[in-house]
Amino acid sequence: MEMISCELDRKSAIPLYEQLYEYIKKEILNGRLPYKAKLPSKRKLAEFLEISQNTIETAYNQLSDEGYVEVIPRRGYFVQAHEDLEYVPKADMPVQESERKEDFIYHFHPGQIDSAYFPIHSWRKLAKQIISEENRELLLLGDPQGEWELRKEIAYYLYHSRGVICTPDQILVGAGMEILLQQLLILLDDELVYGVEDPGYHLIHRLLKTHAKEVYPLAVDEDGLMIEELEQAHIDVAYVTPSHHFPYGTILPVNRRMKLLNWAAEKEGRYIIEDDYDSEFRYSGKSIPSLQSMDQNGKVIYAGSFSKSLMPSIRVSYMVLPTKLSSRFGNEVSLYHSTVSRIDQHILAAFIRQGMFEKHLNRMRKVYRGKLDIVLRVLKGHSDSISLIGGQSGLHVVLVVDNGLSEEALLKKASQAGIKVYPLSSYMLVRKEDMLPTFVLGFAGIEEEKLEEALVALLDCWK
Amino acid sequence: MEMISCELDRKSAIPLYEQLYEYIKKEILNGRLPYKAKLPSKRKLAEFLEISQNTIETAYNQLSDEGYVEVIPRRGYFVQAHEDLEYVPKADMPVQESERKEDFIYHFHPGQIDSAYFPIHSWRKLAKQIISEENRELLLLGDPQGEWELRKEIAYYLYHSRGVICTPDQILVGAGMEILLQQLLILLDDELVYGVEDPGYHLIHRLLKTHAKEVYPLAVDEDGLMIEELEQAHIDVAYVTPSHHFPYGTILPVNRRMKLLNWAAEKEGRYIIEDDYDSEFRYSGKSIPSLQSMDQNGKVIYAGSFSKSLMPSIRVSYMVLPTKLSSRFGNEVSLYHSTVSRIDQHILAAFIRQGMFEKHLNRMRKVYRGKLDIVLRVLKGHSDSISLIGGQSGLHVVLVVDNGLSEEALLKKASQAGIKVYPLSSYMLVRKEDMLPTFVLGFAGIEEEKLEEALVALLDCWK
Repeated sequence: MEMISCELDRKSAIPLYEQLYEYIKKEILNGRLPYKAKLPSKRKLAEFLEISQNTIETAYNQLSDEGYVEVIPRRGYFVQAHEDLEYVPKADMPVQESERKEDFIYHFHPGQIDSAYFPIHSWRKLAKQIISEENRELLLLGDPQGEWELRKEIAYYLYHSRGVICTPDQILVGAGMEILLQQLLILLDDELVYGVEDPGYHLIHRLLKTHAKEVYPLAVDEDGLMIEELEQAHIDVAYVTPSHHFPYGTILPVNRRMKLLNWAAEKEGRYIIEDDYDSEFRYSGKSIPSLQSMDQNGKVIYAGSFSKSLMPSIRVSYMVLPTKLSSRFGNEVSLYHSTVSRIDQHILAAFIRQGMFEKHLNRMRKVYRGKLDIVLRVLKGHSDSISLIGGQSGLHVVLVVDNGLSEEALLKKASQAGIKVYPLSSYMLVRKEDMLPTFVLGFAGIEEEKLEEALVALLDCWK
Repeated sequence: MEMISCELDRKSAIPLYEQLYEYIKKEILNGRLPYKAKLPSKRKLAEFLEISQNTIETAYNQLSDEGYVEVIPRRGYFVQAHEDLEYVPKADMPVQESERKEDFIYHFHPGQIDSAYFPIHSWRKLAKQIISEENRELLLLGDPQGEWELRKEIAYYLYHSRGVICTPDQILVGAGMEILLQQLLILLDDELVYGVEDPGYHLIHRLLKTHAKEVYPLAVDEDGLMIEELEQAHIDVAYVTPSHHFPYGTILPVNRRMKLLNWAAEKEGRYIIEDDYDSEFRYSGKSIPSLQSMDQNGKVIYAGSFSKSLMPSIRVSYMVLPTKLSSRFGNEVSLYHSTVSRIDQHILAAFIRQGMFEKHLNRMRKVYRGKLDIVLRVLKGHSDSISLIGGQSGLHVVLVVDNGLSEEALLKKASQAGIKVYPLSSYMLVRKEDMLPTFVLGFAGIEEEKLEEALVALLDCWK
């Protein structure tokens, strides 16, 4: 047994025990203290290094906790076997580079909103009320399905705005549609075949594929989803956007709705996921009734979100499960945790309860209607080369460009002009060869004063 | 063509056009207005019903938008074909039952924390600062990887507290470990075989199974994970808790750590997911170095969370990806959205930056150390029938009960006494037949003043 000749720096900010621990660790890893070697007794080492036995003990215990040495009662501390690995001195912290930012002048993002009108002061006031001593309880784990107070408000809102018939027990709250869909997959049988509209919301397809599900594209014509495809492809679960097809904007006609509901009713295990992603923004007539409101057989899983109606950064979406599935939730998914902060859920519940949500929606309908009018007016002058799909509701339009340029060329020109646009092809699974270049143009995120110049800049660069 | 004899209620809150629309819809669905029937012209119906043509037009357009009628230019409106479906009158809103609550007197939840000491006033103050006019930008879509400001604080914190070497670019923020794991699955190859510690964090196993991955349990002995198992089961990705095994509390000794790192380095595509779920709470010596800090080959995916160190209800976890994987993130997962509210991310970043997090951690270490002392003291008197695994760190201990009663009987007795405890078997994939009844006892969530009585009540009901 050799003595340990560690040089201790008594002026260092690093505690003596830690210096000793680091030194011995290094000696063991270097092999200078070999396997089975006995460490000096605490008393002897304390005398030799002129430090207290307590310090030695703390260092030895740390080495023992981490498995560098073994304690054999009444015999002492012995070096443990370990595979060869060089001593890795503590690395410096890497240089923290600064944030990378995109630099587009105009960004026609279909998921963006107009943030200028959000009642941020009311939201802050509610946040102040909710984050308080009396609500300390909200720091703890909440209901995995979502806070009851919020689910109650959502049930009430959906009944009155979308005719959705449900109780709070059927509602599941989560941090985005992707998350909710993943939880839904746990409730549904493993072997199901999924169908998604094509074109459609591309993330859903990706997500199902990632989870190794069988997924097929479902063709869409000018009236929306072609129902016959469901039978042909042996689909069990259809993901659809009946009130406002994404991205075409088509409303699925009542005869197809009925066919769709009848298809689902025909066989056990079939379901329809109704993604009602922006139904709040219809600018004429009354809102299109939800498919869920027409469903007599508990076949529709209704899904919605506050991303467009409130703000995309809050990450609150919801699903209304048929009672058969919601009762399964108690057993299965309840082991998971809610994915939305409880505090945020209560702020949102209060926002709806106090009528601020409805007021905000009414205001935003006017704002977006005004923006859509600008889009329609500017594009009208270019009807020779650009035609429009949609244009009665929602926060985006679809442009078909027929000026001889390819999609790639148009994208490049836009990008060079500092304009970000999204080609329809990125939302398609099966790409049609003879299709004219088509783009999904989100107009909500561009300020009203800049929208016309943004559109003109786009049209100019495409000339 | 028949006239439409709709009785309009001019005093109703329902607009006239909506009454007319509902009436015609019903007539179509009842078959009284058959397929191909022509609706009266707007002018004639307006005269007949003594209302304006505008009202008729709004009703007709709504029917046309929803596909009940078709407009043929210069000929008029014709009833569309639809499958038979009875008219579903608008259902009443279901009765909203009240919230169901659990009623345990004492709840030894391993995921719970002590909320009494959280600086809720500081948090509220930060929330007030962040939710402001100048930060309107935070309402819009943020970085899918998480806000840069928060990732910067996490990188700095992890370097100093856990020796984790990373830049903010490697960090992924998400609403819980389950969510982050799902995003990680998108980055990793499809065909990989996963290994999870058994016993271990049961949700991980469930999650991987749901996503149809090949998953095998990895046996754990008194020193932690048995590394040989990895080779034998042809594992590619191992999910481990090396600094504080869940639930046993074992620290994986350095020789096994090195074997584990060497195993991962040997083959392309192998990874270790290091779940460092409660490393903040070690009560003696210095913290156990993270496995990530010893990794020279970019093989460790480090994962942590603010659930225990701050509050479980905020839903913020993070992963540190090896650079090879984080660069893949840009292409793949960036299409997804962050699952945590941007506002919350900025509140949290400020909380860490201003030193409040560290202060809170120091305080909580003392609080939990005190609670653990109570647990150890109370259980000491029962060492004939109860032995303890762990007990040096973390927010839970593991109790092995040897008094002749079965796990089922013990659970029942506890439940009857209003006490919720969690059997180890619920964290096990392969159940050992000869195992004594064992429980995972979370002590953090029970108030200090009540902890002794809670433990005594538990021991009493088990007598």
